Amino acid sequence: MATGVTFAQGFRAAGVACGLKKNGNPDLALVVSDVPAKCAGIFTRNVVKGHSLQLCARHSALGLARAVIINSGCANACVGMRGDADALTMACLGAQAVGCSPQQVLTASTGVIGVPLNMDKIQAGISLALPALSAQGGSAAAQAIMTTDTVRKEVSAQCVGGGKTISLGAMAKGSGMIHPDMATMISVITTDAAISATALKAALKAAADGSYNRISVDGDTSVCDTVVILANGLAGNPVIEEGQPEYSVFLETLRNMCLKLARMLAADGESATKLMEIQVNGAPSDAAALAIAQAVAKSPLVKTALYGQDANCGRIFTAAGYSGARFDPSKVDIYINALKVYENGCALPFDENAALKELEKDVVLYRLELHQGDGHDFMLSCDLTHAYVEINGAYRT
Amino acid sequence: MATGVTFAQGFRAAGVACGLKKNGNPDLALVVSDVPAKCAGIFTRNVVKGHSLQLCARHSALGLARAVIINSGCANACVGMRGDADALTMACLGAQAVGCSPQQVLTASTGVIGVPLNMDKIQAGISLALPALSAQGGSAAAQAIMTTDTVRKEVSAQCVGGGKTISLGAMAKGSGMIHPDMATMISVITTDAAISATALKAALKAAADGSYNRISVDGDTSVCDTVVILANGLAGNPVIEEGQPEYSVFLETLRNMCLKLARMLAADGESATKLMEIQVNGAPSDAAALAIAQAVAKSPLVKTALYGQDANCGRIFTAAGYSGARFDPSKVDIYINALKVYENGCALPFDENAALKELEKDVVLYRLELHQGDGHDFMLSCDLTHAYVEINGAYRT
Repeated sequence: MATGVTFAQGFRAAGVACGLKKNGNPDLALVVSDVPAKCAGIFTRNVVKGHSLQLCARHSALGLARAVIINSGCANACVGMRGDADALTMACLGAQAVGCSPQQVLTASTGVIGVPLNMDKIQAGISLALPALSAQGGSAAAQAIMTTDTVRKEVSAQCVGGGKTISLGAMAKGSGMIHPDMATMISVITTDAAISATALKAALKAAADGSYNRISVDGDTSVCDTVVILANGLAGNPVIEEGQPEYSVFLETLRNMCLKLARMLAADGESATKLMEIQVNGAPSDAAALAIAQAVAKSPLVKTALYGQDANCGRIFTAAGYSGARFDPSKVDIYINALKVYENGCALPFDENAALKELEKDVVLYRLELHQGDGHDFMLSCDLTHAYVEINGAYRT
Repeated sequence: MATGVTFAQGFRAAGVACGLKKNGNPDLALVVSDVPAKCAGIFTRNVVKGHSLQLCARHSALGLARAVIINSGCANACVGMRGDADALTMACLGAQAVGCSPQQVLTASTGVIGVPLNMDKIQAGISLALPALSAQGGSAAAQAIMTTDTVRKEVSAQCVGGGKTISLGAMAKGSGMIHPDMATMISVITTDAAISATALKAALKAAADGSYNRISVDGDTSVCDTVVILANGLAGNPVIEEGQPEYSVFLETLRNMCLKLARMLAADGESATKLMEIQVNGAPSDAAALAIAQAVAKSPLVKTALYGQDANCGRIFTAAGYSGARFDPSKVDIYINALKVYENGCALPFDENAALKELEKDVVLYRLELHQGDGHDFMLSCDLTHAYVEINGAYRT
């Protein structure tokens, strides 16, 4: 079935095992557009940047791409000039295989930092992937980019533009997004929309802000480490430009799709058992609402209490209080799903069993109503578990 | 033996059990100065403030104190006007017992948020504490303010001012300091120094900045939730003023003492097995150095890797990279204790056994040498363990 990155017309993909992962799991994905596609990318804001990511940023800035090569198991980061050369070799090998210029190949690597990429394995992987390319290969590609992810993450959607059906598909990986690592989160989005370069770039940024940039698995705001979008125009619609109604429709479709993936990423946060959603309403400003949502999303105390299904809501209020946002605490109400637990800044006596019933759910919504303005925003996060410590205590070994 | 808060002349203390803690452990501490003492305080920057803390901030601002009453087991926070009244009652009961005005009584509460203080127990506790007051009571008081702390934390020191011996002593509690909770960290410092109010205030701020404000047990910069100092002048030294050589000596003694307590707090971080010290040198500015040290100190990935004794130093570099500090990553060297693991921004091949030998130690120093300026700073933190998740998953229950 054509899913994820091969859902839209004219995209083929493959996922193969080339030996980078010790356990023999698939670790190299290739995504190819039959025709040159407009492309745009968003990359980590970390000062330290992986070598494959740096090359990807330069190539995607040129605006046209034919292929994306992604390896998991090794981040190709912090290994010096060799890492830059390896990323370029990866692009050249991809270009040779696909039949395009190296500048039209985007690269991404995810895994352990500080270890050089085994280029023999990458070369073997590309040779394996080329004949395996297919319009049904989206799932295999989504599988091959996983690291500590426990589930494959793919979505697809359609909208109409200028009387034509436009298809969009995407895959993502990311589980320990935690204090955004380089190359920890990767997402590739493909569409057959005809869209101008500036509109594509604007739509990607807006969609990522409302989805990937609202995830915090642990400790810090999620940064889009690498998100790239390819639009090959094969839907045959009139070229979408910013400001048109078609642009709004395309953007909403893209944003909803990315939000679905973001929820999958948060729910599959490293060793998480629950998706935690934080909504802040009635704040003095949107910025204040976001700061509060982020502080709650990051708090290890909130996250461990959720894991323990302990309605210790003073921790939610506390996190809001040190978020940096200025607000009047005496007007704040707090809810666990629909259960009100704080009113006017005071803890309410509540039924422990009723609270437990809410906290037992797979998705828990903490909602803060500040009653002091129109500012609102949200964050997606997850609980902090024993297994998180386990998995991150010995990641390399 | 006269230790901690009763080390200096003219201070008596007691620690008793009044039933606030379910397990029957001591939970109320009383510290009394025989004569009115100059006082100063530093309090949480959280927008949400506990009721006992708010009263303490008002009373300490008046500049003179006779007594400090601290209860553990209940934070007296987020319970509305009742909490304010309870804090005042606590001060009044203390004043009655000691024989001073309520304004000369400082109050602090630590424990669960959102639960009202049981004032019958507080009253009974003060009645028990009064006859138990003694110049040997420092340890009992230090015991009574503990919550999840595993060890009692007391220090003492002496210096000379104007030919007189000045004694200083202190106690602290704090273990889950993590995303600074209200009333999570409490420290009481006593000294028999004669010192002006402005000098005392300045010395406390400088000492706290170089000690308590350099701890992060988890997730966020430690904030001095409540730190108060009482100086009763019984040493008989000429009154210390800022700018005098005696001030520098007093400040250094105070800072070193607070730093010792800060190291104890970090080492006893909730469920920690190791003290993690981060030193950043050669940064473009001191602010950049602090930002980098804080990011490393907060990173759950760095902290779990330390727990697992995994030399995954890419995580240290990554945390530095997203700290917000601007720097050139290609000049950075990283050390585990004396073992160099990154040079010029590249991972060095290193002996895993040698690294393990360093990581097995109780105190591990991560040192980043940036070679791009004179900026330097440090942070104290600890590892993130299975038991941390355990303890915080069911704190109330």
